[in-house]
Amino acid sequence: MDQIIFLDYAGVAVFAATGALAASRKELDVIGFLFLAGVTGVGGGTFRDLILDVPVFWVQNHDYLLVCAAIAVAVYFSAHLIESRYRLLLWLDAVGLAAYCVFGAWKGLVVTGSAMVAIVMGMLTATFGGILRDILSGEPSVLLRPEIYVTSAMAGAVTFTVLDIAGLPLLLSAAPAFLVAFAIRGGALRFGWS
Amino acid sequence: MDQIIFLDYAGVAVFAATGALAASRKELDVIGFLFLAGVTGVGGGTFRDLILDVPVFWVQNHDYLLVCAAIAVAVYFSAHLIESRYRLLLWLDAVGLAAYCVFGAWKGLVVTGSAMVAIVMGMLTATFGGILRDILSGEPSVLLRPEIYVTSAMAGAVTFTVLDIAGLPLLLSAAPAFLVAFAIRGGALRFGWS
Amino acid sequence: MDQIIFLDYAGVAVFAATGALAASRKELDVIGFLFLAGVTGVGGGTFRDLILDVPVFWVQNHDYLLVCAAIAVAVYFSAHLIESRYRLLLWLDAVGLAAYCVFGAWKGLVVTGSAMVAIVMGMLTATFGGILRDILSGEPSVLLRPEIYVTSAMAGAVTFTVLDIAGLPLLLSAAPAFLVAFAIRGGALRFGWS
Repeated sequence: MDQIIFLDYAGVAVFAATGALAASRKELDVIGFLFLAGVTGVGGGTFRDLILDVPVFWVQNHDYLLVCAAIAVAVYFSAHLIESRYRLLLWLDAVGLAAYCVFGAWKGLVVTGSAMVAIVMGMLTATFGGILRDILSGEPSVLLRPEIYVTSAMAGAVTFTVLDIAGLPLLLSAAPAFLVAFAIRGGALRFGWS
Repeated sequence: MDQIIFLDYAGVAVFAATGALAASRKELDVIGFLFLAGVTGVGGGTFRDLILDVPVFWVQNHDYLLVCAAIAVAVYFSAHLIESRYRLLLWLDAVGLAAYCVFGAWKGLVVTGSAMVAIVMGMLTATFGGILRDILSGEPSVLLRPEIYVTSAMAGAVTFTVLDIAGLPLLLSAAPAFLVAFAIRGGALRFGWS
Repeated sequence: MDQIIFLDYAGVAVFAATGALAASRKELDVIGFLFLAGVTGVGGGTFRDLILDVPVFWVQNHDYLLVCAAIAVAVYFSAHLIESRYRLLLWLDAVGLAAYCVFGAWKGLVVTGSAMVAIVMGMLTATFGGILRDILSGEPSVLLRPEIYVTSAMAGAVTFTVLDIAGLPLLLSAAPAFLVAFAIRGGALRFGWS
């Protein structure tokens, strides 16, 4: 748990940053930054926990909300310095996707013991924050972009689940799965895979 | 239960097909088909179960996910053969709407014993999968189309609830309710009722 | 509880009215009014209760659904008499926002005892009904309008939480918080603050 919780914070933080960047693109005020950072940062994990019928993670541990708030404020004061906010948003989204598909699969597996539910939870956790961000900020859903998106989340969740069930230690299941997901999504962004 | 569970699978299957058809219209890859089929197939029932505070049905029983996946793959390989994918999507959506408004009302009634909650659950189960599909695929919500939509879900849910409370056997409550909902929605599609 | 429950009914009623006005603007049928009034009226509180892991309020007490239905029918028969339905929608939304950010914060505080969760719950309860309304009716989200929106919900939730934790009686915490939220949002609407 202690080893993989890092992925959870990483996912929340980078998704929160993408929400804040979306707020910046829409020229919202600082509270709009907080709101979109919060919804994007914890949205996917919230649905995951509701569906798994476990306590919602950020109600249990407020640190996640503080992370979102800190990121939102930091982006608010620095976003104007960034050359291409949308490009950065997409790359951070790729990191969050990779972190969250692994963490979601891990939590799904721990709670239900089912590989299939684990994979679905990984995909859902990884994609719903970004979907909420796109809906709320009025952008076309990242889901509909030509580049491979859900595929990379699925690949990461499947990789983790297979390795974990095969009996590998947590880190040796999580690290390759993260890399698989990020490599696929990053390749799609970099080389225009579709 | 055994008699009415058929409606549940039917609703999941045809909604999954409409999700896959939406993916086809958007020219997504096969994982996009899986994703939209899954979200559309189980989305309405997921909200229903969360609100009723019962275990989410597809976490308990993975067959529903397998049904969605099988439908998604089948549509992926056959959608190009279909003359009008949107027309088929609307008709399948009508079947899913009719099946799900009855099953949702039944589950609401079993869990809460309240006719009003049962009717709301029927409407919610029947409409939310399609609403999620339309939001995620960037289509105008089926809710806003001129043809009668929510009305048919409500009519089916009310019919089932009244007949069931009147003491009719499950099948004799469910079948007329399904037909009422499908006839109204089908009439709207066929004759342009609004 | 008895003192503050009034805010809950007020929030549901005015949000339901905004949903019905949105249905009127889209020229939906009466069932469309019922649907949008219901989703907008109870949507924010539904997410709040799911996340807090308490029974969903309108499943426990059907009066809320009856309020939504009555409002929907009343708006259906009177909306054509209203000069500017969108203007009225925005002002009612401001009342609902103020009522719901206070009630949401109160419920969050009662259930979790955490000030931070209370504030987030206030913001979430106050904004999600309107967000759902805008998504379902195909309007640009009220979140993206230039006027201060989430800010007022946050101000109300913070005010209530601070006063309540300071030990003030419920009414003396709730009334100023409501006024703060409404004054900020109303000022934004009236004077174009942004």
